[in-house]
Amino acid sequence: MIRIAVLGCGRIGVMHAANIAAHPRAVLAGVFDIHAPAAQAVAAKTGAQVFGSAEAVFASADVDAVLIATATDTHADLLELAVAAGKPVLCEKPIDLSLERVNRCATTIAGTKVAIQLGFVRRFDPGHAAVRRAITSGEIGELHQVVITSRDPGMPPPAYTAVSGGILRDMTIHDLDMARFILGEEVTEVFATGSRLVDPALMDKLGDYDTVTVVLKTASGKQAIINNSRQAVYGYDQRVEALGTKGMALSENRRAHEMTLHKADFTDRAEPLLNFFIERYREAFDAEISEFVDAVETGRAPSVGFEDGRLALVLAEAALKSITEGRVVAVKELN
Amino acid sequence: MIRIAVLGCGRIGVMHAANIAAHPRAVLAGVFDIHAPAAQAVAAKTGAQVFGSAEAVFASADVDAVLIATATDTHADLLELAVAAGKPVLCEKPIDLSLERVNRCATTIAGTKVAIQLGFVRRFDPGHAAVRRAITSGEIGELHQVVITSRDPGMPPPAYTAVSGGILRDMTIHDLDMARFILGEEVTEVFATGSRLVDPALMDKLGDYDTVTVVLKTASGKQAIINNSRQAVYGYDQRVEALGTKGMALSENRRAHEMTLHKADFTDRAEPLLNFFIERYREAFDAEISEFVDAVETGRAPSVGFEDGRLALVLAEAALKSITEGRVVAVKELN
Amino acid sequence: MIRIAVLGCGRIGVMHAANIAAHPRAVLAGVFDIHAPAAQAVAAKTGAQVFGSAEAVFASADVDAVLIATATDTHADLLELAVAAGKPVLCEKPIDLSLERVNRCATTIAGTKVAIQLGFVRRFDPGHAAVRRAITSGEIGELHQVVITSRDPGMPPPAYTAVSGGILRDMTIHDLDMARFILGEEVTEVFATGSRLVDPALMDKLGDYDTVTVVLKTASGKQAIINNSRQAVYGYDQRVEALGTKGMALSENRRAHEMTLHKADFTDRAEPLLNFFIERYREAFDAEISEFVDAVETGRAPSVGFEDGRLALVLAEAALKSITEGRVVAVKELN
Amino acid sequence: MIRIAVLGCGRIGVMHAANIAAHPRAVLAGVFDIHAPAAQAVAAKTGAQVFGSAEAVFASADVDAVLIATATDTHADLLELAVAAGKPVLCEKPIDLSLERVNRCATTIAGTKVAIQLGFVRRFDPGHAAVRRAITSGEIGELHQVVITSRDPGMPPPAYTAVSGGILRDMTIHDLDMARFILGEEVTEVFATGSRLVDPALMDKLGDYDTVTVVLKTASGKQAIINNSRQAVYGYDQRVEALGTKGMALSENRRAHEMTLHKADFTDRAEPLLNFFIERYREAFDAEISEFVDAVETGRAPSVGFEDGRLALVLAEAALKSITEGRVVAVKELN
Repeated sequence: MIRIAVLGCGRIGVMHAANIAAHPRAVLAGVFDIHAPAAQAVAAKTGAQVFGSAEAVFASADVDAVLIATATDTHADLLELAVAAGKPVLCEKPIDLSLERVNRCATTIAGTKVAIQLGFVRRFDPGHAAVRRAITSGEIGELHQVVITSRDPGMPPPAYTAVSGGILRDMTIHDLDMARFILGEEVTEVFATGSRLVDPALMDKLGDYDTVTVVLKTASGKQAIINNSRQAVYGYDQRVEALGTKGMALSENRRAHEMTLHKADFTDRAEPLLNFFIERYREAFDAEISEFVDAVETGRAPSVGFEDGRLALVLAEAALKSITEGRVVAVKELN
Repeated sequence: MIRIAVLGCGRIGVMHAANIAAHPRAVLAGVFDIHAPAAQAVAAKTGAQVFGSAEAVFASADVDAVLIATATDTHADLLELAVAAGKPVLCEKPIDLSLERVNRCATTIAGTKVAIQLGFVRRFDPGHAAVRRAITSGEIGELHQVVITSRDPGMPPPAYTAVSGGILRDMTIHDLDMARFILGEEVTEVFATGSRLVDPALMDKLGDYDTVTVVLKTASGKQAIINNSRQAVYGYDQRVEALGTKGMALSENRRAHEMTLHKADFTDRAEPLLNFFIERYREAFDAEISEFVDAVETGRAPSVGFEDGRLALVLAEAALKSITEGRVVAVKELN
Repeated sequence: MIRIAVLGCGRIGVMHAANIAAHPRAVLAGVFDIHAPAAQAVAAKTGAQVFGSAEAVFASADVDAVLIATATDTHADLLELAVAAGKPVLCEKPIDLSLERVNRCATTIAGTKVAIQLGFVRRFDPGHAAVRRAITSGEIGELHQVVITSRDPGMPPPAYTAVSGGILRDMTIHDLDMARFILGEEVTEVFATGSRLVDPALMDKLGDYDTVTVVLKTASGKQAIINNSRQAVYGYDQRVEALGTKGMALSENRRAHEMTLHKADFTDRAEPLLNFFIERYREAFDAEISEFVDAVETGRAPSVGFEDGRLALVLAEAALKSITEGRVVAVKELN
Repeated sequence: MIRIAVLGCGRIGVMHAANIAAHPRAVLAGVFDIHAPAAQAVAAKTGAQVFGSAEAVFASADVDAVLIATATDTHADLLELAVAAGKPVLCEKPIDLSLERVNRCATTIAGTKVAIQLGFVRRFDPGHAAVRRAITSGEIGELHQVVITSRDPGMPPPAYTAVSGGILRDMTIHDLDMARFILGEEVTEVFATGSRLVDPALMDKLGDYDTVTVVLKTASGKQAIINNSRQAVYGYDQRVEALGTKGMALSENRRAHEMTLHKADFTDRAEPLLNFFIERYREAFDAEISEFVDAVETGRAPSVGFEDGRLALVLAEAALKSITEGRVVAVKELN
């Protein structure tokens, strides 16, 4: 049994803590939050120990590995501490909103043997992973085009949006990683365009966008298209499509159940989409923990690591530059 | 080009006349209706000749074949006349509402070489026919169970219902033929139950049913289940399902187009079903004419003939007897 | 927290034990199995206490409620003991294979205030439950017809089949309960027919059937149709359909994920169905425990109780009699 | 009855001639082809007159209107002749491959009252048109994003590709018009990227692309994304999706029938897509003729006219420029 401590007991940390507690090969070794009652609430439910500081977690001999789910601006620091302490770490994305800081972190931890897994949970979604498998198995032949539809059910609270780093670093970054995962080769060119349609006043104020299209291209000419919106009133819309020389694989949305209604005015009316990410990616969050436990148990590197986190941010920066300059940006301009 | 005359210019006769006129290997040789203006309207549109009587049609050297779409109680007489005149005939179902009259007709035409096709149009539906092909090709292995869902969008006008012969002879008869078509072997036992739920007052008055379930069984134990309702407010519901040892084939409903709507309360909302039979079985009506033209051109027997019409009526009678007596009825009791 | 002990650590008992352990308002208070290592294995994983006998469970002050998942022939005895001990009980179906024994049990426990829940888990399936809600909310109007498709992926091991009590008491019984749940009123007439198609030799030997159709009717004329097969090679096929005056509600099959494949020969190819009941009814098994915990917490009766278990068996007996006698059987003949 | 003559009896001309002949309010007044036997073949089947020259068609008092389905490089000339002769004209797309020639044609016909309809048939597809209606009716609120998936089943013959004008003018042009139709406001910015993946050798030789992504933007910030491939082995993939503030409308692919297959390895396996455009857009081709007949009957302008043809070509030119220069191209640079 791998004993994992969770740093950060916000919404996603609480979920990870419960998943670890229920995992057949993991134990929730403890929790920490700068706001102590948040950690205590998790402890009350799971019986896990409450740590008084992140340092205490890293120092504990009862902790085999850590999961970082704290505020974004602490990720890089905690990650460096975890590596220094030799504790394998599963770190929520993003590593940091600043590419400079991420690059510095990369230098700091260069050469470490400590397992680092980045929290790009969607790679573990059974449907999206099946698309990737349809490519690696040769089922759909040589890959030509990828289409990623990724729309949130609605705008986050304005306070969150203001510190999110902007839609590209906050939301699109998941899709940029998904594009890299599905493409299976590095992106060399980025084009993006952004609009202010959902909440133009707020977007103008923040210099941000709520509706974004990104087009990626690899050296061999493979194309990936991402379409993002901050508001899909019909629910959290998460689709991945891959076109190859021998066919297409399509990961569609899920619903809570399969009851459809047929009445005088319509047929096939289904439930709204699963809403929000904790519900939609429930199986993926479980599989993400399993991947981490496997990596720690066997000493191998996790399938999605620090460099994946860094490269997704590089693509987000390239996309921002493309929006600003109205042109294709070569990834090497930024990396 | 096969020159076909249409007898009866009601709704279905008008549709057949147009289909024949548009058919690449057929010509609409003429039309007849006891109500002359009905025939004249078709003629005005198609340029076809108006005949003054059914006898004139049968006597005409310009008519290669006839399609009977007159009132049900004239079918058997006209069919006998067509056979006597040596004109291949496509006769709308049912041959007659009386099994005795149908049996007499069988005797009268016994041994004829004249092609007779019965208007069980659903056999020609591309989806339902594909279910049958999935069986004959071995794709789904040995057949075990058939489920036929067949529901009308709403009650016919009371005047029609009163002379329809009852739901079993009027509506279920199509499904009884579909069951025989899909089963590919003869039914030996029939069970049925009927309810008065849609319009209990009318059904009580007519001694009829509006909601019916029929269970058929063959000598080898294959089962077919038919569920009928006179009222499916979501549209004309027409599904055929076949379970075999190697899989299931399922012919689902069609819609006018594939636009779906996704809003805050629902997803995947599609159009109501195609409504009614002329729209739903449009391709099937075309294919039915092609089958008839093929048969006339080549001199072979049509794939669905007089005996199919007679046996469907035998099953309807057996189902009625089963409802009345609350027991399984052996087909040989009636045949 | 409700402290629940699990009696019986076979496949389904182990699953229940894990679900209870992970439940936010329940604790796994202990486990018992006549084969001690089975209980010890569960204990090792969950930290739960191992009891030496069922009697010890019922006597324990640390046990608030029990879940019976032992061999079928012990259900009635243990249920009576639980009631005698005043422990609320969630009992796997069937209560017993003998209606006489079930009736005796009913007499024994008559008038008890102890909560008894029967393990008809499918009532808690989110899709099937949504069909029921579409009726109780008036969404689809007055109910007319119910169609239940229920097919196992393949024959159980012959040894199991031999002691299963036959397909009607073993498999159809779930669908008979589902029919009662969806209909919302009592069944008064039963018709059934059985065939031996999947494994005729075994079925002949056991006097059992592998392919069954059951037609149920209520006093008001509502119809329910069940089609069962012991072998659907495409997976565990579980569908529920309800037709009413204002529409149709349809609970369709689920899959592990929503990836579809589109190639030169086909489109929309999806995963096989979830297989088997533990996977298909995962959410339902969770919700079943929640229902039990709620009932115990609040002292109310569970929504599915002893009499539901008894009446499903009465319908199974009526169906058997109908197969044998080839006629409609009135439920009152047996009840 | 509107008497329509068809110029050009290639594959699409033959189809139009048959549709006109079968149309309830139109008559096929005659046909012309520079290769006389092609026209004679149509005449033999339909009884229509064969004209000896295009000029004879325009001069005929028996021709109310013309449909131009000749080789692309004759469209503009014939269109000018039709206008000069005062004959309403339905002209297949494109008007010409040269924007300069199209602009010259625009000058020539400026101010004409003669009805001109451009053959952007997809606007008449029942599903795609329903997406547009979901916008104009307010059903999905303010439009934000449009996604058009448009992939051909396979590369056209190399000889055709060589003279096609390139994928943007030949294939994408349909989608550029669809984007304008769905957006309902003018595109101001164009970005495009092209790859050579399906047949790199041929594409290199022709300086053409087989895989293209185009991103369009309107002045208000609405985005439209087009993804094109010359090869979708699973069939002719034609989808249109519109995201608005109140929901999403999605026009999905159609199949020849709704039979699905469920076997040990898969479920829901459907037919390949309808292939090719004559089959997929059958209803749309009929509705296109109806629109033309309506316009001619009532004297109103067709809903899709010459300027739509010209603007789609402008967008194609802008997209080409964008591919070449790797930047966003303002439409006004070309128009």
